Amino acid sequence: MEFPSKILEDAVLQFAKLPGIGKKTALRMVLHLLKQEKTQVDQLSHSLEKLKTDLHYCTECHNISDANLCNICADARRHHEVICVVEDLRDVMAIENTSQYRGVYHVLGGLISPVDGIGPSDIKIEALCDRVQQSQAREIIFALAATMEGDTTAFYISKRLQGIPMKFTSIARGIAIGGELEYADEITLGRSILGRIPYNV
Amino acid sequence: MEFPSKILEDAVLQFAKLPGIGKKTALRMVLHLLKQEKTQVDQLSHSLEKLKTDLHYCTECHNISDANLCNICADARRHHEVICVVEDLRDVMAIENTSQYRGVYHVLGGLISPVDGIGPSDIKIEALCDRVQQSQAREIIFALAATMEGDTTAFYISKRLQGIPMKFTSIARGIAIGGELEYADEITLGRSILGRIPYNV
Repeated sequence: MEFPSKILEDAVLQFAKLPGIGKKTALRMVLHLLKQEKTQVDQLSHSLEKLKTDLHYCTECHNISDANLCNICADARRHHEVICVVEDLRDVMAIENTSQYRGVYHVLGGLISPVDGIGPSDIKIEALCDRVQQSQAREIIFALAATMEGDTTAFYISKRLQGIPMKFTSIARGIAIGGELEYADEITLGRSILGRIPYNV
Repeated sequence: MEFPSKILEDAVLQFAKLPGIGKKTALRMVLHLLKQEKTQVDQLSHSLEKLKTDLHYCTECHNISDANLCNICADARRHHEVICVVEDLRDVMAIENTSQYRGVYHVLGGLISPVDGIGPSDIKIEALCDRVQQSQAREIIFALAATMEGDTTAFYISKRLQGIPMKFTSIARGIAIGGELEYADEITLGRSILGRIPYNV
């Protein structure tokens, strides 16, 4: 792709670095921005700068926050002795959306993945151990992806916290509510039979 | 979607204004940027600012350019008496990619579309008329979309330039090179028969 302008090319290449964005989509975005008022482009540029300067991470759970302590950790009505361990912010948002969880979170910011060169020290596992030791946490819920990385991370954390009296749980895996058995993949269906739960009338 | 941080939400909403980007994709982009070095985010933000301040439009063809006259219009070896009328920059890039065209361009910056409230005065038609009257242009090639908007725009321009001795042409529409007849849509196939060309051995 040859661009008629260096400035345009720069902008397109910058956008093309974003995940899932190729050069063609990046060009479409840049041409869209060119048609907008200067104020809108300034707003976008300003938001970007603020992202890196003004955004905080909660000192307790490492979730993104505007203050030093996020809303969830600062809320005294939440059960601070139950910690749900998740990979990132999106998982917190998804669980919060259900309105079913009243505990607090711990955002790892990634999963252990030797292939990608991410070791235990690259994510917030040490901070979780410190936090558990200093608090009265009595349950850790793993809400991690059902992948090798997720399983490795959960296993590593449970080993690290061995000896501390603590209940470890994992979110239930099984057939979705309303899901048809015949369309479920065999691994999920197999696990849902192995991990069957008591039937309560 | 409820965000744990106002700054994060602002950034996501700004990204979600881009074409084809929903809130989920915007969030993915923002989280990606958060993991990057500050310099990369600064580069993106800087490119955006430059877009609106330093980018020029060629005074001749209205294509995006770093100087007052774009490379194509400034090139004396190009045939300045043949003007190819296109909708936007991407069309110029696509035609330039073929290396088959040695004339110059005129970038309208849109097509007449009453539904979207875009009239002839919103795109660079007046500038094209002025340009044609002041130059020795002898051919106008319409390389516009084969839609109602494209046809309307070509028709309007040809009417506006009525009386000026000038050849109007349109890019050929037909079956793509290597395209199978049985898979071609009927409108294209029909037009390719109506607009058949002499067979040269």
